[in-house]
Amino acid sequence: MFITLEGPEGCGKTSQIALLGEFLRQQGRSVVLLREPGGTTIGDQVRAVLLSMKNQEMCTRTEILLFQASRAQLVEQVIRPRLAQGDLVLCDRYADSTLAYQGYGYQKFHLAELKRLVDFATGGLKPDLTLLLDVDVETGLQRRMQGGGVNRLDALELDFHRRVRQGYLEMARAEPQRWEIIDAGQSLEDVQQALRQVVTQRLQLSWSPESGGPG
Amino acid sequence: MFITLEGPEGCGKTSQIALLGEFLRQQGRSVVLLREPGGTTIGDQVRAVLLSMKNQEMCTRTEILLFQASRAQLVEQVIRPRLAQGDLVLCDRYADSTLAYQGYGYQKFHLAELKRLVDFATGGLKPDLTLLLDVDVETGLQRRMQGGGVNRLDALELDFHRRVRQGYLEMARAEPQRWEIIDAGQSLEDVQQALRQVVTQRLQLSWSPESGGPG
Repeated sequence: MFITLEGPEGCGKTSQIALLGEFLRQQGRSVVLLREPGGTTIGDQVRAVLLSMKNQEMCTRTEILLFQASRAQLVEQVIRPRLAQGDLVLCDRYADSTLAYQGYGYQKFHLAELKRLVDFATGGLKPDLTLLLDVDVETGLQRRMQGGGVNRLDALELDFHRRVRQGYLEMARAEPQRWEIIDAGQSLEDVQQALRQVVTQRLQLSWSPESGGPG
Repeated sequence: MFITLEGPEGCGKTSQIALLGEFLRQQGRSVVLLREPGGTTIGDQVRAVLLSMKNQEMCTRTEILLFQASRAQLVEQVIRPRLAQGDLVLCDRYADSTLAYQGYGYQKFHLAELKRLVDFATGGLKPDLTLLLDVDVETGLQRRMQGGGVNRLDALELDFHRRVRQGYLEMARAEPQRWEIIDAGQSLEDVQQALRQVVTQRLQLSWSPESGGPG
């Protein structure tokens, strides 16, 4: 099973995916935790180029193609082999991030064109389940600033981040069998509880919220 | 005017483009010499990832996307602005290299799919003139080995390089108004003479082969 976490800046994906992975391991699953861009030696080299504050002159097409390059390597080198072994793959961002950020966010390209690019990069591999950690833009960016880890993409203007959020919600509503929307404005514990419930239902594990809290 | 040089390994592009650029400058042209992948700060970072012998595990889709990323940056940051200024842009490899190497060479992807990718990267910018320095594969690779600068892509097998050459010839024959085939098996001087003649004709400069030799 291939599960991805998506959401705007400061939605808490990184903390949540670590806790969710730990929980699933406790359930006896063999779990692979990945993040995009990166996740492979080559992908990490591409990630460094993408996120460096020195690369301010990067044009949009370059950015989109670098994300796809990192993704292509991750899919072929890690995700496909691990899924073939029966592992559960949890990925912090995937193809939908391209559509949300570079499609809905930038509004410079047709979504159909970006979908073709993403299909080329992934060879058509789609997640079985995508968890959208939805949070309003102000809350998300505020959390992000407090965390201190601001990168080149965070520094874009507020309207951009609003379009990204709306894009995510639109995609989630258009394909409800794959997406689950989680209210990420709640406390870390409540978000984690909601994630566990959704994933457990999908995995058809025998688990109830009473049997264990987060962490 | 936008001129690209293409050809299989060891065809002598790099030496020839330098001489050709010098010649055109002597003719009073404002010339920009570029090479792919690279040619910009960001593109050079991508080039390093692409050509590193350490990155042997790079999958084909990643390679293709990294070439496009480098190209997108070069087009937007350098080629388009320079053409708009009226400069003559000479580029060592461009979009046709993707079709020749990753299309005809690897035979894993539809050419139409690669053309769409290339179109995305270049925003549809095509050269006015493409000079194919054609040389048989054995001669080319032998030259390359003597030069010593062997990279990850040179190390592919002989049949691959044969398909690349055939791909180039096929593309050149299919679009003769854009391509000129130069016999690069000749001496460096003769190849340069042929290049100057073709470019001069295209630029409609008043120049004859008698008025000056190469170098």
